[in-house]
Amino acid sequence: MAKEKKLVESITSMDEDFAKWYTDIVKKAELIEYTSVKGCMVIRPYGYAIWENMQKILDGMFKETGHENVCMPMFIPESLLQKEKDHVEGFAPEVAWVTHGGSEKLEDRLCVRPTSETLFCEHYSNIIHSYRDLPKLYNQWVSVVRWEKTTRPFLRSREFLWQEGHTIHATAEEAIAETEQMLNIYAEFCERDLAMPVIKGKKTESDKFAGAESTYAIEALMHDGKALQAGTSHYFGDGFARAFDIEYTDKENKHVFPHQTSWGVTTRLIGAIIMTHGDNSGLVLPPAVAPIQVVILPIAQHKEGVLEKANELYDRIKAAGVRVKLDDSENSAGWKFAEYEMKGVPVRVEIGPKDIEAGQCVIATRHNGEKTVVSLDELETAVAQKLQEVRDGLYQKALENREKRTYDCKTIDEINEKLASEGDGFVMAMWCGDEACEDAVKEQTGVGSRCIPMEQRQISDTCVCCGKKAEHMVCWGKAY
Amino acid sequence: MAKEKKLVESITSMDEDFAKWYTDIVKKAELIEYTSVKGCMVIRPYGYAIWENMQKILDGMFKETGHENVCMPMFIPESLLQKEKDHVEGFAPEVAWVTHGGSEKLEDRLCVRPTSETLFCEHYSNIIHSYRDLPKLYNQWVSVVRWEKTTRPFLRSREFLWQEGHTIHATAEEAIAETEQMLNIYAEFCERDLAMPVIKGKKTESDKFAGAESTYAIEALMHDGKALQAGTSHYFGDGFARAFDIEYTDKENKHVFPHQTSWGVTTRLIGAIIMTHGDNSGLVLPPAVAPIQVVILPIAQHKEGVLEKANELYDRIKAAGVRVKLDDSENSAGWKFAEYEMKGVPVRVEIGPKDIEAGQCVIATRHNGEKTVVSLDELETAVAQKLQEVRDGLYQKALENREKRTYDCKTIDEINEKLASEGDGFVMAMWCGDEACEDAVKEQTGVGSRCIPMEQRQISDTCVCCGKKAEHMVCWGKAY
Repeated sequence: MAKEKKLVESITSMDEDFAKWYTDIVKKAELIEYTSVKGCMVIRPYGYAIWENMQKILDGMFKETGHENVCMPMFIPESLLQKEKDHVEGFAPEVAWVTHGGSEKLEDRLCVRPTSETLFCEHYSNIIHSYRDLPKLYNQWVSVVRWEKTTRPFLRSREFLWQEGHTIHATAEEAIAETEQMLNIYAEFCERDLAMPVIKGKKTESDKFAGAESTYAIEALMHDGKALQAGTSHYFGDGFARAFDIEYTDKENKHVFPHQTSWGVTTRLIGAIIMTHGDNSGLVLPPAVAPIQVVILPIAQHKEGVLEKANELYDRIKAAGVRVKLDDSENSAGWKFAEYEMKGVPVRVEIGPKDIEAGQCVIATRHNGEKTVVSLDELETAVAQKLQEVRDGLYQKALENREKRTYDCKTIDEINEKLASEGDGFVMAMWCGDEACEDAVKEQTGVGSRCIPMEQRQISDTCVCCGKKAEHMVCWGKAY
Repeated sequence: MAKEKKLVESITSMDEDFAKWYTDIVKKAELIEYTSVKGCMVIRPYGYAIWENMQKILDGMFKETGHENVCMPMFIPESLLQKEKDHVEGFAPEVAWVTHGGSEKLEDRLCVRPTSETLFCEHYSNIIHSYRDLPKLYNQWVSVVRWEKTTRPFLRSREFLWQEGHTIHATAEEAIAETEQMLNIYAEFCERDLAMPVIKGKKTESDKFAGAESTYAIEALMHDGKALQAGTSHYFGDGFARAFDIEYTDKENKHVFPHQTSWGVTTRLIGAIIMTHGDNSGLVLPPAVAPIQVVILPIAQHKEGVLEKANELYDRIKAAGVRVKLDDSENSAGWKFAEYEMKGVPVRVEIGPKDIEAGQCVIATRHNGEKTVVSLDELETAVAQKLQEVRDGLYQKALENREKRTYDCKTIDEINEKLASEGDGFVMAMWCGDEACEDAVKEQTGVGSRCIPMEQRQISDTCVCCGKKAEHMVCWGKAY
């Protein structure tokens, strides 16, 4: 009991200090550990297993849509990075520079990739000659480095894991369709597998990726009302192709510049899960990516037949294709309850002497604490159903939080009133398209433009800032 | 036919120039492409898919034996690298140094990890306190950097992909058993899945990993008679624990230093496959890791019913769990034959109008060019059997090459005679255990000690060099 108490006491309440609650969870649920490398972290087995599950699902979705994995070098020569003007301006200030190999000083220093557009472009220029060589639909799972000043586990770190898709197409239409397809894949993954509702939209000009013609993003609302960009998909037009001399000969034997895209999601999604679903007892994991989907806790396990029965349930649940763990350790039941709540295991199965006698077990769901008595005859069906219930319940809860915290506003004053009375959230307000107004809204209200949602509504006819004719409804928020 | 001719002409014969043959294959089979980052390469989809297949099998073997994946930072502060004396001496001369983050000069410069013992040790010191925290059985799939002077694709590059296992145990016995277990897993994987026979052995003192108490390795013999170290497994004793202050309290509440191991295999294994199984028509891939295990080539595909039938075969082979490709492109049959030979696809299925009429297809195996007519009723069984035949045939061929090129020698003169008359290979000769003799053998014959094989034979009673009492049979060779 001593250990159990310690465990529960040691989490800050999310209402008291959301940021502290967050870092408590990443530590106590054993997702990460800090290192002496400033701004970098160890992703521990439980955290890494979440990422592996994400990878597996996403990688399957990428391959189903014809993408192939490759691996580029982790270094980019400074001269290569400089080839695309906007791109180097965006990234050079925040890269790590390798200046020496062994004791030898490098002539052209190398940056550790912050993203790999330049390397893919160099490669394309070597392998693409004819229309027959197109499209190339590539992806890689690697880590990248950006020299951030302030860092937070998963949300913003100097090194992070991600996938970066890079594709090149004969026509603009094809490349744009790819950009949209990948945004849709990200949204589907977030909503179905992470139980996290997202808003699909386009970034404003000022918020585009360095070198992109347009950037699409999915935006999610965290429990505290702040926005988190959960994935991006960029359309480059032929800008990179021109900068890197990538040309192909078309069917009429003319030289043409191809069109490119890139798209990525990162380990930031783990942070998104924590801040979307977590509560004051710890992590709450959506079943699709939970390292342990079901934990079996034997009650009074020293009594005859209990462990035997628990093992039998374990075998049956495992055979049903579920990631299941049986904890038959010496720790107290109370400690175990707290431990697996902290770790966010979606479904808990309890089995004790009385249950065995009655031919039943108790199934508890992490997200709402509900317990159901289930006949052992229906174990597999009940477990599958409960896992689905957790996913659906989490999604519903997150959606309700977002709806409650989405404010349609017609004026700057209205934005400020809403944020003051209701707390942070998504502000939906019209915009004329002028960057000055975008900046003014941020300055006067604290919320920046997150995206121009694909699903537009006409909240008013005029810009929330200048009162001129509105062009778009923008989703505004405070961003992680 | 023009393209086909070009394809075949463009490979150097392996007998003429083995090194050139090798680099021709890595390029023509589209495994890699060079980049402007010296000593680094792009691993292209076909090459990366081989690595993904290797990863999947090995990762499964690691997890079955209780290992968990984690992810450490890619950077190591210089001060941390310096904590273990032998380790820093071994690695510091060949690391890439990051000296600047953005425009800011770093106080403690960072190296890009050449290997991660120091990071794991720092982490252990944070999370290991009691005997209850042991063992930790960790692994990570990452890339590492070593600033090599001369590089060759897969075999020696400045950045390479690998897995590095790192474990920590309460006792020396447990750690030694882990070291041996992992060596056995590597050997099993190489022999069963890569069809590559290996010799398991222990490295001599002079050839140990920097910081290790003992290093075990598997050594394979390439087609040209040169040796390739295919995997290593290190036992560290408590040396790193002492250097990094990793202590735990045992059951009697005493402070004790734990014992560690590390072990790794790299993308070098792709190079090993090429040089073990490849021939003058290109790559030959062992089925377990081949991206395409079976290619279906429709003959006279414009004729009625051919493509339909080919698609039917495709569906059946795919349903049997085989990685299959149907090439119904416009390229000529001759071009396709050459293309999939170059790519080393283990099994080719041909189906044409006459075959359809006779209710049969032709199955060809890449490693020996044999063709078998098979009734369509037995398609799935025949394909599975052929894939097994390829694996067994490749293994047998490689084993015969090794046996033919293994020379038992009793004197230095005998070594020189054998190498001169038979060509490079493994020399088995006795050794007294003195480093001076080890060096002298290398100097006088060109072959260095590869390992002290686990399976010892008594070739003579005296050291091949000094004539004193022999302690071990050593396997000597020229190494990649």
